[in-house]
Amino acid sequence: MSELDAVLDRIDRDLDQSLERLFAFLKIQSVSTDPAYQKQCRSAAEFVAADLASIGFKSEVRPTGGHPVVIAKSGNGATASGRRPRVLFYGHYDVQPVDPIELWTTPPFEPRIETLPGGRKIIVARGACDDKGQAMTFIEACRAYKAVTGKLPLPITMMIEGEEECGSKNLFGFVRDNADEFKLDLALVCDTGMWDPRTPSITTSLRGLVYEEIKLTCADRDLHSGLFGGAAQNPIRVLSKILAAMHDEDGRVTIPGFYEGVRELPPSVHADLAGLNMTAEQFLGQVGLKVPAGEKDRMLIEQITTRPTAEINGIVGGYTGEGAKTVLPGKASAKVSFRLVGDQDPVKIRDAFRAFVTARLPVDCTVEFANFADSRALALDFDNPALEKARAALQAEWGRKAMTIGAGGSIPIVGDFKSVLGMDSLMVGFALDDDRVHSPNEKFDLTSFHKGTRSWARILHALAA
Amino acid sequence: MSELDAVLDRIDRDLDQSLERLFAFLKIQSVSTDPAYQKQCRSAAEFVAADLASIGFKSEVRPTGGHPVVIAKSGNGATASGRRPRVLFYGHYDVQPVDPIELWTTPPFEPRIETLPGGRKIIVARGACDDKGQAMTFIEACRAYKAVTGKLPLPITMMIEGEEECGSKNLFGFVRDNADEFKLDLALVCDTGMWDPRTPSITTSLRGLVYEEIKLTCADRDLHSGLFGGAAQNPIRVLSKILAAMHDEDGRVTIPGFYEGVRELPPSVHADLAGLNMTAEQFLGQVGLKVPAGEKDRMLIEQITTRPTAEINGIVGGYTGEGAKTVLPGKASAKVSFRLVGDQDPVKIRDAFRAFVTARLPVDCTVEFANFADSRALALDFDNPALEKARAALQAEWGRKAMTIGAGGSIPIVGDFKSVLGMDSLMVGFALDDDRVHSPNEKFDLTSFHKGTRSWARILHALAA
Repeated sequence: MSELDAVLDRIDRDLDQSLERLFAFLKIQSVSTDPAYQKQCRSAAEFVAADLASIGFKSEVRPTGGHPVVIAKSGNGATASGRRPRVLFYGHYDVQPVDPIELWTTPPFEPRIETLPGGRKIIVARGACDDKGQAMTFIEACRAYKAVTGKLPLPITMMIEGEEECGSKNLFGFVRDNADEFKLDLALVCDTGMWDPRTPSITTSLRGLVYEEIKLTCADRDLHSGLFGGAAQNPIRVLSKILAAMHDEDGRVTIPGFYEGVRELPPSVHADLAGLNMTAEQFLGQVGLKVPAGEKDRMLIEQITTRPTAEINGIVGGYTGEGAKTVLPGKASAKVSFRLVGDQDPVKIRDAFRAFVTARLPVDCTVEFANFADSRALALDFDNPALEKARAALQAEWGRKAMTIGAGGSIPIVGDFKSVLGMDSLMVGFALDDDRVHSPNEKFDLTSFHKGTRSWARILHALAA
Repeated sequence: MSELDAVLDRIDRDLDQSLERLFAFLKIQSVSTDPAYQKQCRSAAEFVAADLASIGFKSEVRPTGGHPVVIAKSGNGATASGRRPRVLFYGHYDVQPVDPIELWTTPPFEPRIETLPGGRKIIVARGACDDKGQAMTFIEACRAYKAVTGKLPLPITMMIEGEEECGSKNLFGFVRDNADEFKLDLALVCDTGMWDPRTPSITTSLRGLVYEEIKLTCADRDLHSGLFGGAAQNPIRVLSKILAAMHDEDGRVTIPGFYEGVRELPPSVHADLAGLNMTAEQFLGQVGLKVPAGEKDRMLIEQITTRPTAEINGIVGGYTGEGAKTVLPGKASAKVSFRLVGDQDPVKIRDAFRAFVTARLPVDCTVEFANFADSRALALDFDNPALEKARAALQAEWGRKAMTIGAGGSIPIVGDFKSVLGMDSLMVGFALDDDRVHSPNEKFDLTSFHKGTRSWARILHALAA
């Protein structure tokens, strides 16, 4: 049996124990965006650090301005040999909030295996996929390598952070301040998806993200709509008008300068995307929708991967409880985010959005802004030799050619791996479109977890060759 | 000392005990719109019934489809004598919700007296004004009469309900089903305001109210804005567009047919209103605003009293917690209410609003509606002799001519007193514009409570003469 086969065999035999470790990780309520969960975030970091130490990494829980980051280094090969790249694996231990909690069929932090009609098995929990389950596929691959061969095939540095779900704000400074330590040969990231349940994929571009909060204030208190209604400015009305003006009838974003830096696709890439024949029925049908709501003159696949967007992520104002309250609120707020592509400048977009809002404020309305993310879009260099090696490894595991795709989501720090550390990122992930990432009843297919682990073993083997 | 003077003297001497009774009433958390407070609403009803029994009323807590209503009848004079009108006093024991609770400087159900800079004393609590404090001015006037004279000056029936703050839904049927019992000569209501802290007023018209909730659904779950953003319909975007379209640039409501039944003011009434010289600085300045936001071609006093309005009372959708969450929500909802005047038909307005919303829904969006109020506007008959008697009584107490004004708010049942029972309502109240009714830190001036009680004693005396 070859070394790789022995490692893969070990992964198969160890699957139940792998799941036990994953479940222990999933039980930790590491919701990073809510300050109430600070202790649990630290617990999750300590869990990962201890787990990595148990397979021979020198691991540390290092402080940042926010939740700590786990840094762990393998012993074998502090510097690059001629052939074996030194890799930085990036993942995150934090998870999204669980609300609306009432839509979960079982508690979000009590992971369980469920068997779907047809026999498909899924792991259900907050973070089952994003990113605890995905990060563990890599860690389990390392564990198997270590168990079988006594060492890892490459020098590996692990960076498992705790603020990805709230914009990785503090990781940027951490990476910049320690650039020499992390300037390695290649970053590996496991936080993306498959093309479909049978087709693996490598994500070669990511949209950037600008995330803004706007808080409007009109009267200095909530008013009685019977007394003041009709005369006092209503901040929900102002907010609605601003948000309604962000898109035109054709689905284009109306903020001046928004499309600056957005390039048209080369004809060959456009033809490739068209050849995928992604239909609204196939993509939107899974969530009960029918008609693409983006730019009317763009294909659905463009709308979700290569075109920039503006979305309203949340809104609140006035009385939102049961029944009726005749209040005319003093305040209203919304969260708005933008997915960026090409050379769109996050700072310019943020400023243009703020100017767009400010220009629409009536006299009796003031605004406060907060920024939670401002990352550029990113594209992998197609000449990187790791790309072909990873494609071959994935094809060997899944029996199908791996797609190279652009992802609609953002992984903020990956941009800095390129711009600050000069490193390409190889993004391979095993999420599926129906994983309900960020939603109630998040899940990860058992197949994604198991074959994902095997995929990483194959990729590590290929990169070391 | 005349009988009236003796009664007024008794009110002055009994003030501390009056406040003790009011505070006991204010401590009961009778929030009617929230089902969680059902028991407390019942307690408040029982409190009122017991208090009225203690001053000789035959009182009962009578069931309705919702919170019970307190009915109490004085013994003296079951039928009308030639001169003394039989009166029905209407008030409510329920209060508004207390949220946002964090803006209260002391707990809303722990009433206290606060002395403002300058020496003005106020009673602070939820319901201090609306309507526990106001209702108690009438009850305390009755108590003093009873203590001094051994009886009440008129045959009085009390109707203190528990659902005014959620639209009085069940009281309509109760009044209709028992019309013979309550068809008396005049209704008295204490749930309105003064013109200013020194000028009493009688409210001679009330705006009607239609209160609607709209719930939009797009995707059948919350989505990741990175995966679905740009392609999946966003219900907050749809809702914003609908709400933004409700008013034109001139502040007029754009719902087709909305202004049907709205009459222009007679020139003399218009001149009277203009003569009040209500300024934006005076009315809006107290809550930190400057510019009237209603119909541009109308005076401020018209905007808040004689013109119909559309207000957004609440909105919620997506992530509203701390920090960022890249969710694309499946649902969003809003509460919208309309103040009606003249002959506007609440059912037509409701239907027109629903049609307006439905016409603006894209393919992938469904809507559910709920209605919480649909009452007509109301105007008092100026020929009613009680009006002049009450004006004289108020002038005797306050030393200033009482204004007759239109109120922007709605008291739903008063419409039915007219249409079902054929009775005019004399609405006299002692609320001030800065009472923060429906807002945190609701208050009632001690002067309003004390002189309000004295005012009712004078009005009862005048009506009995």
